[in-house]
Amino acid sequence: MEFFECLFCKENYPADLFNPFCPDCHEPLLYHFPRKKRDFSLGKAHYLDQYSDFLPLSKINRNIYLGEGATPLIKLNRLVKKYKLPLVFVKNEIFNPTGSFKDRGTTVAVQKAISSGIRRIGTVSTGNMASSTAAFGAKAGLETFLLVKEDTSSEKVLSAGIHNPVIIKVEGDYGSLFYKSFSLGKKYNIYFMNSVDPFRIEGYKVTGFEIYLQSNHQAPRYIFVPLSSGGHLIGLMRSFINLKEQGMIQQLPTFVGVQAQGCSPIAHAFSSGSLKVKRILKSRTIAHAISNPDPPGGNISLKFIRENDGLIIDVSDEEMLASQRALAEIEGIFCQPASATAFAGLMKLSQKIKFSLDDLIVLVITGSGLKALKTLNAKRMNIYHSSLNRLENMLDSLVLSF
Amino acid sequence: MEFFECLFCKENYPADLFNPFCPDCHEPLLYHFPRKKRDFSLGKAHYLDQYSDFLPLSKINRNIYLGEGATPLIKLNRLVKKYKLPLVFVKNEIFNPTGSFKDRGTTVAVQKAISSGIRRIGTVSTGNMASSTAAFGAKAGLETFLLVKEDTSSEKVLSAGIHNPVIIKVEGDYGSLFYKSFSLGKKYNIYFMNSVDPFRIEGYKVTGFEIYLQSNHQAPRYIFVPLSSGGHLIGLMRSFINLKEQGMIQQLPTFVGVQAQGCSPIAHAFSSGSLKVKRILKSRTIAHAISNPDPPGGNISLKFIRENDGLIIDVSDEEMLASQRALAEIEGIFCQPASATAFAGLMKLSQKIKFSLDDLIVLVITGSGLKALKTLNAKRMNIYHSSLNRLENMLDSLVLSF
Repeated sequence: MEFFECLFCKENYPADLFNPFCPDCHEPLLYHFPRKKRDFSLGKAHYLDQYSDFLPLSKINRNIYLGEGATPLIKLNRLVKKYKLPLVFVKNEIFNPTGSFKDRGTTVAVQKAISSGIRRIGTVSTGNMASSTAAFGAKAGLETFLLVKEDTSSEKVLSAGIHNPVIIKVEGDYGSLFYKSFSLGKKYNIYFMNSVDPFRIEGYKVTGFEIYLQSNHQAPRYIFVPLSSGGHLIGLMRSFINLKEQGMIQQLPTFVGVQAQGCSPIAHAFSSGSLKVKRILKSRTIAHAISNPDPPGGNISLKFIRENDGLIIDVSDEEMLASQRALAEIEGIFCQPASATAFAGLMKLSQKIKFSLDDLIVLVITGSGLKALKTLNAKRMNIYHSSLNRLENMLDSLVLSF
Repeated sequence: MEFFECLFCKENYPADLFNPFCPDCHEPLLYHFPRKKRDFSLGKAHYLDQYSDFLPLSKINRNIYLGEGATPLIKLNRLVKKYKLPLVFVKNEIFNPTGSFKDRGTTVAVQKAISSGIRRIGTVSTGNMASSTAAFGAKAGLETFLLVKEDTSSEKVLSAGIHNPVIIKVEGDYGSLFYKSFSLGKKYNIYFMNSVDPFRIEGYKVTGFEIYLQSNHQAPRYIFVPLSSGGHLIGLMRSFINLKEQGMIQQLPTFVGVQAQGCSPIAHAFSSGSLKVKRILKSRTIAHAISNPDPPGGNISLKFIRENDGLIIDVSDEEMLASQRALAEIEGIFCQPASATAFAGLMKLSQKIKFSLDDLIVLVITGSGLKALKTLNAKRMNIYHSSLNRLENMLDSLVLSF
């Protein structure tokens, strides 16, 4: 028998995929692991097999694999030099099948769906999670239902729709849609693997384990991660909590959750000392991928961050876009504005905190810039026009100007 | 001293990055390797270090790394079942830093630029190569010049432009631009690492080595690869030729180069028995990434395919789009139309050739579907609209219809 646990009420409940919320305090439940010695099984063939001891899967279907995980940890040499930073690495989650970290969680939730005999899955999403759920649903041969906001951009609808899911654009409050999806899921036997689904969150742990293994079996000093609904941060923190429980590390990294200033309810709660996140009414940021005004994992994120000496900060759209450009122009990494919050957060914090030179800092880059081309400004780019005949003259003047 | 060789005139020439063409027959030159025992150095830290014995690099700068290579080999279970095919795997080159196989070649060419003291690089491209060259140019701190067609789509310009290269949209014949770039490169000290650059081609070999290693040190029976300028096919074939020279395999895979029917000069030459590719006047295909009417590596591709019992075929835009949908809907893989030619080619050939059940077939998927969203048709997708209140009714009817 499997259990979910409420971190606030300290109670366990039989695991119910269709209703992963505490009946008392209504907070999202997390998967409950009994304490025991756990270890990696590196070298095993399937991505998830290597970490199965830490995952809530008793059976792994090896046919479900799209190339997820094992993403690169990339050193930022030039930015570090330019801004006199310590050792900074990017954990580049763009290298996932649908170009975002969501695949890490989706693959675990889909495994759970299959082993539970579930044939219908779904998600409530503004973009990255929709294409991820649709792709894995296709690979597994499941019926997939995507509930998206009425104003979801056509590029996001297309990149999910190519996998042939049912897409419903829903007019109305997104927060209400999120909670309503669970009762509809129960009725129609659709497993809604939303942002704080307990299995999805466990899937995010693998990113943390990889960071540890890629850092020569050490915990970084800091990990910066974009913060929206909270699921990703919770999963990453749980991986290092797992490592500490197993005696593999002595100390957790300092986690820094970074929100967009135009939609930063968790950062507000953190800086005001509140224990509860208050929903905000309107989100105003170009970082759509992290603009959740009513984050379901907000309170758990706050609790984890407080108990483990983490930080939650926010950055402006301007800081975000400047960071996106810096990563692309100086390090060759093209990420979404939402993902650039990680570097923007580091830059902001570096003005307040004196890093020591041997501090290992990891920025988690969450999604591909190809998924948010509309936020780019061609006017800032060096674009010229020439005929073939006049090309030499043009190059002549351009080369001189460097 | 390094040499380039002409496969047609059987002559060697001192390697000149700025003019990699045979002075006699004007065919592209390839890098010349003296015969010697070569082997892999697996387990080494940097991607290229593992294959350095087979690469034209005497020095590898470890700072140049964006996560290229080590792409997954993914089994197609459901398509194989549906169409009664033998063992089919996808070598998914979408898992490269800029979402296409071009990064494999760019990283080697950029290494060469750096070790040669070159500070300016460039490319003539319609898309994938532009963003790849711009990203690696940024990582290496080089000045990057991109010459693109006047009508290059804004999404392609944006995804390259974010890395801050100089982009010149050139009006005029694309084939002439290709050849002109070399004389301009020589004059302005810009190393144009174009489609058939000898170092770029050597970089593509690593994909072949990975396929061999991922297939338990065996050569697949067939390898299908989209075919445009020829550089990719030449590199892949050279890797298996290298493996055979070293006694690591006994027989080469049968290579199948797949062109788009609307732009298939190499397939025409192949089927008509000609030794030379004739340029075609107008290309008419949605597969922009492989629409080169005057492929510089066409004659070498023909020669390699003929000498090694390969095939060159073409597929229609309709077959390509149907294959793109099949890969996305049934296997969760979202590739460009150009990349879907590999599966379309397999389907076409499976009607003529009787595969044996234990034939290992590898399809090389070359680029991400996110880079060609405009070719998708939303009308073919299951998109519905609903208010939050009426969502239950809508789901009711949709679930019943399955």
